[in-house]
Amino acid sequence: MSNVVNKEVSKMKGKQSILFKNPPYIIAASSVAGKKEGEGPFGHLIDTVHEDVLLGKDTWEEAESEFMKEAVEKALSKAELKSEDIRYLLAGDLLGQLIATSFGIAELKIPFFGLFGACSTIGEAMSLGAILIDGNFADKVIAVTSSHFASAEKQFRFPLGYGNQRPYSASWTVTGSGGVVLSNQKGKKIEGATIRIRGITVGKIVDYGIKDTMNMGAAMAPAACDTIKVHLSDMGIEPTYYDKIITGDLGYVGSDILIDLLKEENIDISKNHMDCGKEIFDQESQDTHAGGSGCACAAITFASYVIKQLQDRKWKRVLLLPTGSLHSKVSYNEGNTMPGIAHGVVIEAEG
Amino acid sequence: MSNVVNKEVSKMKGKQSILFKNPPYIIAASSVAGKKEGEGPFGHLIDTVHEDVLLGKDTWEEAESEFMKEAVEKALSKAELKSEDIRYLLAGDLLGQLIATSFGIAELKIPFFGLFGACSTIGEAMSLGAILIDGNFADKVIAVTSSHFASAEKQFRFPLGYGNQRPYSASWTVTGSGGVVLSNQKGKKIEGATIRIRGITVGKIVDYGIKDTMNMGAAMAPAACDTIKVHLSDMGIEPTYYDKIITGDLGYVGSDILIDLLKEENIDISKNHMDCGKEIFDQESQDTHAGGSGCACAAITFASYVIKQLQDRKWKRVLLLPTGSLHSKVSYNEGNTMPGIAHGVVIEAEG
Repeated sequence: MSNVVNKEVSKMKGKQSILFKNPPYIIAASSVAGKKEGEGPFGHLIDTVHEDVLLGKDTWEEAESEFMKEAVEKALSKAELKSEDIRYLLAGDLLGQLIATSFGIAELKIPFFGLFGACSTIGEAMSLGAILIDGNFADKVIAVTSSHFASAEKQFRFPLGYGNQRPYSASWTVTGSGGVVLSNQKGKKIEGATIRIRGITVGKIVDYGIKDTMNMGAAMAPAACDTIKVHLSDMGIEPTYYDKIITGDLGYVGSDILIDLLKEENIDISKNHMDCGKEIFDQESQDTHAGGSGCACAAITFASYVIKQLQDRKWKRVLLLPTGSLHSKVSYNEGNTMPGIAHGVVIEAEG
Repeated sequence: MSNVVNKEVSKMKGKQSILFKNPPYIIAASSVAGKKEGEGPFGHLIDTVHEDVLLGKDTWEEAESEFMKEAVEKALSKAELKSEDIRYLLAGDLLGQLIATSFGIAELKIPFFGLFGACSTIGEAMSLGAILIDGNFADKVIAVTSSHFASAEKQFRFPLGYGNQRPYSASWTVTGSGGVVLSNQKGKKIEGATIRIRGITVGKIVDYGIKDTMNMGAAMAPAACDTIKVHLSDMGIEPTYYDKIITGDLGYVGSDILIDLLKEENIDISKNHMDCGKEIFDQESQDTHAGGSGCACAAITFASYVIKQLQDRKWKRVLLLPTGSLHSKVSYNEGNTMPGIAHGVVIEAEG
C-alpha cells in the first residue's frame, strides 16, 4: 500500500476493494450516548452522556432521533462548520424504514443518502462518504449512525416490560449515536495526528444459516472473516500491517468464532484484534453478556476511543470493520436465517 | 449543460447537484412484475410477468426477494454479464431492515451497499452507482429495487384479510422489481440510442406535516418540488430542457399538488411532467385509485417504458425523480408526520 498516492494506480483493488488517490480527512468525530455507555470503559471519551435516555421525548424512537441530531450537531461544532457547509449526509439506523435517521436529521436540511447495513452501517456510510470526497463529488460530508437499547428491543425482540431472560450469547444494544465529518482538506484545528481514510473493502452478504437472534455474533463472524480475507488479498498485506483490526459488534462469542474461522484460512489476527462490542461495556460489572451491539456500537467506539488512539499516535493504522446481521422481526418469525455483512475501512494517522 | 465533458469543470454543481465528467452508460435495464402490472399499460414492455405473485414461495417477503433476484439475473443476461463481472450492487426495498433485498441478492455474492429512501430508492441507487462509475471506483454496478403489494400492505397498513376500504388518495404498491446495469463503457449490444446518466441532484428531507398514510402523494410532492427547483437552479436550465420530468409515485393527487407548488415558484412543468404512479396502471379499469407506488413503481416504469422511449429516440433527455415517503408503521402509530424525499437523475440518449 506504499503506492497509495500514485495517480497512475487504479482505485479498484482486487475483487472488492478501493484505494483512494486523495484519501479523505476525518476532520471531526462525535459521540453522544446514554448513561450505561457513559459508565463503561469509554465514558470519559464520549462527548455527551445523557442520564435520561428518553431525552425528554415521548417515545424511544424520538429519543434515538434526538441522539443522532445531537451527534451531527456536535460533529459540526467540533469541525467549526454549519450544516450548510456539508454537501451530503450519509446515515442509517436499525429501525424499520430508518425512522430514527429521517426524523433526526430532517431539520438539518442536508442532502441525504439513507443507508441500511444493520450494525455495519457506519462502515457503509464512511465508505460511501470517502468515495464522494475522493471522487471530487463533495468537499465535506457527514457519516453518522444511531441505535437505542429500548427502540431496538421493541423492534427486534420483546417489549421491555416482558422482562425476558437473556442468554449469554445475547448482546446489549448501544444507546446513542456516533459520526464523523469527512473532508477533502485538513481541518482547521488539527489536534494530534492527521487522520485519513486510505481505502475500503465493501462486504458481501454471507449466510451461514444461523437463526438465533440471541446469537448475532455467530451470524456475523463469517461475514467478517470473508471481508478480512478478501481485504488482505486485495491490498496484498498481512494482518500485522495494522495496529488493530477492529470488528464492530461480534462480542465475546462472535470474536472467538472469527479468530477460529480465520485460523482455518491461515490468517492470524489473535494478536491485534479488537471488537467494539467487547470493549464498550465492562462485561462483568455491567451485565452485558456477549457485549454491545447496534449501529452506535462501532460508531461511538470509533468516535471516542479509536480516534483518540490515532490522534495520540498510539496506533498508526487500523482496519475498522463494522459488522451487521441482516434480519428483521418478520424474517425471524418466518423462520429465516440471519445473513451477515461486514464493511472494511482503512484508517491511518499521519504526522 | 453543454460543457458536460469539459474536464476542468468541477463535478459539484450548485448546492446539491453533480454533473458527471464521464457519464456512466446504462447498458441494460430489466423489469420483472406481477399479473396486475402485466395487465397495465406497460405490460408488453416488462421483461417477465408472473401470474402467481407468490412465485411458489411460502411468504410474500420471500416472493419479493425472488422478484429482485430475477430482476438482477435478467439485467445480467441482457448485458451479457455474470454476477462476478459486477463490482458493486446497490439495492433496497420498503420492508423493515431491507429483508427483501438481503435474502434476494445474498447468493449472487456481489459486494453490496444497502440503501433506503422508501420509493425514491431506485433514484438513490442509480445516483450512487453513477458516482462509483464516474469516479473510477467501479467498472460495472447494478442498481435495483423491489416492492410487493402484499408485503407492503402487511408492513405499513392492515393484513390483506381485513379487507379495509381504500380512499381515493391511496396508492397501490407495485409488485415486482426493476434494475439497471451501469458501466464505464458502452455495452456490447447497443440497441437504439446510447443512454447515459449525465448528472444527479440529491434530495433533502422535506416535511410538510402530512400524517395520512393513505395520501402519500401529498407527503412527497413538496420534496419533489424542492428537488426540481434546486436541480433547475444548480444546472442553470429551464424545465423545457427535458422531454419529460418523470416523478416516481406521486400519483394523481400528488402530481396535481406538485404542479401547483412549482407554479408558485414560477416553474411550469405541466407540459412535460409524467408520473410513473399515474402511468403504470390504468386507473379506471384497474381500480388503483391514486395510482401505483412502491420502490418498484419508478424502477419498473423506467426499465420498461422510459428506457424504450430513449432507445427509440422519442425522448432525448429526461429527469427521473423517484419520490419517497419516509414513514414506518411505528412512526405512524406514534402520531408522527411523513417526511418526503426525491432524488433527481438526469438521463440522456445519444446517437
